[in-house]
Amino acid sequence: MKPRDGRRRVVIEDVTPQVDAGTFPIRRICGDDVVVSAAVFADGHDHLAARVLYRHESETEWRFVQMQELKEDVWTANFVADQIGGWRFTVTGWVDHFATWSSDFAKRVAAQDQAECAEDLAATQDVALALSTGAILIREGSKRAQGDDARRLTEIAQKFETLANARKSSYENPCDDELQQLMARYPDVTHATRYKMELPLWVDRERAQFSSWYELFPRSASPVSGRHGTLGDVEQQLPEIAEMGFDVVYLPPIHPIGRAFRKGPNNMTVAPPGAPGSPWAIGDTTAVNYASVGAAVAGDCGGHKSIHPMLGTFADFERLVKSARLRGVDVALDIAFQCSPDHPWVKDHPDWFVRRPDGSIQYAENPPKKYQDIYPLNFESDDWRGLWDELYSVFEFWIERGVHIFRVDNPHTKALPFWEWCLGEVRSRYPDVIFLAEAFTRPHVMYGLAKRGFTQSYTYFTWRNSKPELQSYLEEITRPPVSDFFRPNFWPNTPDILHKSLQDGGRPAFMHRLILAATLVSNYGIYGPAYELAENAAATPPAGRSESEEYLDSEKYEIRQRDRNRPDSLVPLIAALNRIRRENRALQSNASLHFHSIDNPNLICYSKATPGFENTILAVVNIDSFNEQIGWTSLDLDRLGFSPNEKLLVEDLLTGAQYTWRDRNYVALRPGVQPAHIFRVTRLQ
Amino acid sequence: MKPRDGRRRVVIEDVTPQVDAGTFPIRRICGDDVVVSAAVFADGHDHLAARVLYRHESETEWRFVQMQELKEDVWTANFVADQIGGWRFTVTGWVDHFATWSSDFAKRVAAQDQAECAEDLAATQDVALALSTGAILIREGSKRAQGDDARRLTEIAQKFETLANARKSSYENPCDDELQQLMARYPDVTHATRYKMELPLWVDRERAQFSSWYELFPRSASPVSGRHGTLGDVEQQLPEIAEMGFDVVYLPPIHPIGRAFRKGPNNMTVAPPGAPGSPWAIGDTTAVNYASVGAAVAGDCGGHKSIHPMLGTFADFERLVKSARLRGVDVALDIAFQCSPDHPWVKDHPDWFVRRPDGSIQYAENPPKKYQDIYPLNFESDDWRGLWDELYSVFEFWIERGVHIFRVDNPHTKALPFWEWCLGEVRSRYPDVIFLAEAFTRPHVMYGLAKRGFTQSYTYFTWRNSKPELQSYLEEITRPPVSDFFRPNFWPNTPDILHKSLQDGGRPAFMHRLILAATLVSNYGIYGPAYELAENAAATPPAGRSESEEYLDSEKYEIRQRDRNRPDSLVPLIAALNRIRRENRALQSNASLHFHSIDNPNLICYSKATPGFENTILAVVNIDSFNEQIGWTSLDLDRLGFSPNEKLLVEDLLTGAQYTWRDRNYVALRPGVQPAHIFRVTRLQ
Repeated sequence: MKPRDGRRRVVIEDVTPQVDAGTFPIRRICGDDVVVSAAVFADGHDHLAARVLYRHESETEWRFVQMQELKEDVWTANFVADQIGGWRFTVTGWVDHFATWSSDFAKRVAAQDQAECAEDLAATQDVALALSTGAILIREGSKRAQGDDARRLTEIAQKFETLANARKSSYENPCDDELQQLMARYPDVTHATRYKMELPLWVDRERAQFSSWYELFPRSASPVSGRHGTLGDVEQQLPEIAEMGFDVVYLPPIHPIGRAFRKGPNNMTVAPPGAPGSPWAIGDTTAVNYASVGAAVAGDCGGHKSIHPMLGTFADFERLVKSARLRGVDVALDIAFQCSPDHPWVKDHPDWFVRRPDGSIQYAENPPKKYQDIYPLNFESDDWRGLWDELYSVFEFWIERGVHIFRVDNPHTKALPFWEWCLGEVRSRYPDVIFLAEAFTRPHVMYGLAKRGFTQSYTYFTWRNSKPELQSYLEEITRPPVSDFFRPNFWPNTPDILHKSLQDGGRPAFMHRLILAATLVSNYGIYGPAYELAENAAATPPAGRSESEEYLDSEKYEIRQRDRNRPDSLVPLIAALNRIRRENRALQSNASLHFHSIDNPNLICYSKATPGFENTILAVVNIDSFNEQIGWTSLDLDRLGFSPNEKLLVEDLLTGAQYTWRDRNYVALRPGVQPAHIFRVTRLQ
Repeated sequence: MKPRDGRRRVVIEDVTPQVDAGTFPIRRICGDDVVVSAAVFADGHDHLAARVLYRHESETEWRFVQMQELKEDVWTANFVADQIGGWRFTVTGWVDHFATWSSDFAKRVAAQDQAECAEDLAATQDVALALSTGAILIREGSKRAQGDDARRLTEIAQKFETLANARKSSYENPCDDELQQLMARYPDVTHATRYKMELPLWVDRERAQFSSWYELFPRSASPVSGRHGTLGDVEQQLPEIAEMGFDVVYLPPIHPIGRAFRKGPNNMTVAPPGAPGSPWAIGDTTAVNYASVGAAVAGDCGGHKSIHPMLGTFADFERLVKSARLRGVDVALDIAFQCSPDHPWVKDHPDWFVRRPDGSIQYAENPPKKYQDIYPLNFESDDWRGLWDELYSVFEFWIERGVHIFRVDNPHTKALPFWEWCLGEVRSRYPDVIFLAEAFTRPHVMYGLAKRGFTQSYTYFTWRNSKPELQSYLEEITRPPVSDFFRPNFWPNTPDILHKSLQDGGRPAFMHRLILAATLVSNYGIYGPAYELAENAAATPPAGRSESEEYLDSEKYEIRQRDRNRPDSLVPLIAALNRIRRENRALQSNASLHFHSIDNPNLICYSKATPGFENTILAVVNIDSFNEQIGWTSLDLDRLGFSPNEKLLVEDLLTGAQYTWRDRNYVALRPGVQPAHIFRVTRLQ
């Protein structure tokens, strides 16, 4: 078996970036420079040329950019991804006979000048013959060119022929920049090789990479003590949340809550009367229940396409979304694909669940533990197509109501091929939609979900507390191959996770964990107002365990009204951090994150910079919640855009203080008081 | 667009080994254990099962082996490649509902025993219901099973049903090993996932990985001074070469040598009358020339399918090959695809060459240097199909005359797609053929040739002389991904390369470079008798250079008769090394190569071992040709199969001396006298 054309001598390999050999797209945001590199080589010593071909899915023609040889056989070029959506790119390369000829010709002319008398004639003859070869190549080029270029090349070819026929005793080199450029514009690509595949790229809107999330429970949002909060109450809080600098307000599920096996405060198995239940137990309800307590009722309701009547109506919801949008804030909904026993799907589609031999539907369990308030969906259902369509329609339902960011609950308990399909479907119609995966699971599954289309993901940040843990984890997730498909979103707390370090460290711990989350990565979020108030009381550990990561009196099971503007609140620090993030582009992506040495295991030092060091941030954080820590830095000045021994001007964006720094600097940081420096680095004038 | 079956929940990724995402085969030798690993995972917490599927290209049915979970989500299994030729392998995985059920069931039974009185009934009811579920799964298994197994599973299912119906107050767990094994034998693979591709594997005969090459010029092989050597003379030397322990005798091109622009001694541009020329300038000749000097003449001859009449006839050649085979020795031919101006292809196929504007054929040149004795082939010829076929036929011609090993001259100046096709064609018909690439070129091209089918390759070993150079290079080429497609063959000298270190270091340098080549990698070779005699006189450097790597009075241009058994010959050392290589399986592959620390930059310490440490070799080599070097080792005992602090018995296979060693040992090695220890490591009795 022979290849179609054996004259394609160029080989193209090792094209980067790619995820799993092109199985999944690499991810970028709109406006990013996409840097492509490839090994491009052939037999022998001919000169080569190569291009990156790229196009948005809406374009039928390839655009291209010429590649440059970066080092031996490795070529590179960049293009700007100037539109959200799907892209393809690939690499093509060919033997550039004119470039080879031109380089050899220059050597011939030089040799002719240095030739001994005896060899003069032979050398000159070679030059004349080579000129004829050049004329042929240029004439072929003129046939590929158009208009003036074609005429000009024909002229040059004629000039070369005349020169060749002149049989002079010594030649000048007639090749000039004009000729090189003209010939480069019309290369002979007859035998060009194309890389074996087109690689996929997905371009998101900027918020996919740079976002600040604020999670709150609408039912706790009422300013009136004892009253069930509403979407309207959330709308009232929007100015304050936007003022703090958040651009995503994320609401736990807003659907009616199941009544069967409803959980009581502190996860009690039997709920006392009036207990509001967990918003993640999504169920059915009837008008009756809520009419009695004065809620706005939208008739028959239930399931993932309805709103809990105590929270409000669709009109309220749409007003909230609109009001948020006016402030540049996205409302993000939590999509939890699971059902309480009274969810309408249970009645309408019992085949979407596992049935037990006695005909009952299998509830969630981890023997011997039972979670009878939750029915998991069965992704091996014979009616998987019907199930997939219905789940997809949930996203579409809310997208049409203005929701363009979703936080997906426990995506790792739903089939991965479903996500690949569903997120692909959503993106093909609504390319600006962002999905945050609550994938607190094993690395392969967490990354598997990201590859299949989740825009952002929760991470292990919460459980990375020591300096080596933080550094090695950050280095893993902010560099290729991981950073090509995975975007971390750091949460120092969630309604499910109050980490031991916060329980023990209290307010000082809340401060430095917040600073780390907001400056180490460009996507972060907090669950408030528990965070602002540094709430650190944990629930009683479960039997047989010495620790719990659950909140005491968790808001998951009861309404908790609080005042985020209490005197000891962290609101000012949060607002400062969000302002610093907005004002410094260096903090709006992760690729440049670099850890610098500092001689104290409780001090962590890192920098981020824009590609040309137009904006450079250098942070030092004390990760000890109890003691002042002092240390000396050893900065890698090149990672800050400076030469060795150069001095830097650093301005602490938290305090306004300015210092002159070099590679070695003394630092002293006190927990709770000044736990960190966040410096903007500039050049001394 | 929906996948064919959305119920396939298992994801299979990161299958290793693979070369360039399955574009090229991984290489193994017959009898190798092929270790396959893969990330196999799914949503949720179900138990999974996975298999490696594999088959030789001659088989239509897959064989399979069950995979085991090595660490979180990473599964592995091995199979033995028991036949040379092409293989395919892939991975399949599925959710093992029976295993999930069985594991949950054990927990239920345990929980039932620990349950509080009040919960007894509920727990027992759960166990009974779970038994019914188990019965259903087992009954389904019985339908997939055959014969006795099917009957037995039906019996067990019935027993489970009876137990479930008994509604006992407490249950034993009726699952036993027999049931687990039966169910594992008949898994439900309805929704199994298959890895997206079948990965290629190529299995060579053992000599592809373990070979000792001896290169000699037949024309220098005559025992009679001044007489042109013959193939018969080579045959006479075979016992001696085999006695030294070599198993490949490699002959530079044995074809007629071109007369046009023939080179004289020391690469003189004009050859004096009677100069034999370079064997790599393959040309045409007529009977007349050689008849006059008494050579056996086979009529009209010339080109790559003929034998130089002064060397002998095809009958002589076949006798040589047969005689070698009787001694377990392969005769390897050098295939140099280039032509002198009087090669028959030039006359018959002028279109296989580049023509200059004056109609003449383009000779090789690197302006201003000219190599007018050589016409390179043009792989962009319009008749590339004809050219490819002819080149292929050269290999087939010699294969049919008993040659199953080829050394290919300068393969990097011929198109890579040609090699991919040509070597594939040869291998599909003659799977035992071995190709050694003389690819002294850039890394991408060198590796590109290996990926496209060269069995072994020359390397940069000659230019890696310091300890860090040797260690980092060896670590690159003996580990995946490189070792999956690239097999190094180390040559301390070749007719083209007499390295500065040998020129300066003389006999002691020849000793330690030989020891390194023979023990660092499993394929090595020397060019003799220049090597045995430590010939170190270099040619005058070319104009403008301070060094030459060419031999003085190079055998490439003249006949050089020598006595390899001179008193100072290295034959005894060579014979000892080849014996050690044959007797120690550790030295017959490279995967286990490990460098140990030793506190002297002129001492290099490394080990190789068989997978179970049945055979372990530890070497220490002094790479200084002039001075005794002493040092202390710090051995990684686990890489030798020993526990920390354990003592080892080491026996020097060069001297017979025995020592008791631990991790730290004193070593003193003298160049030229005892430049190395090659220890066999065993346990103290």
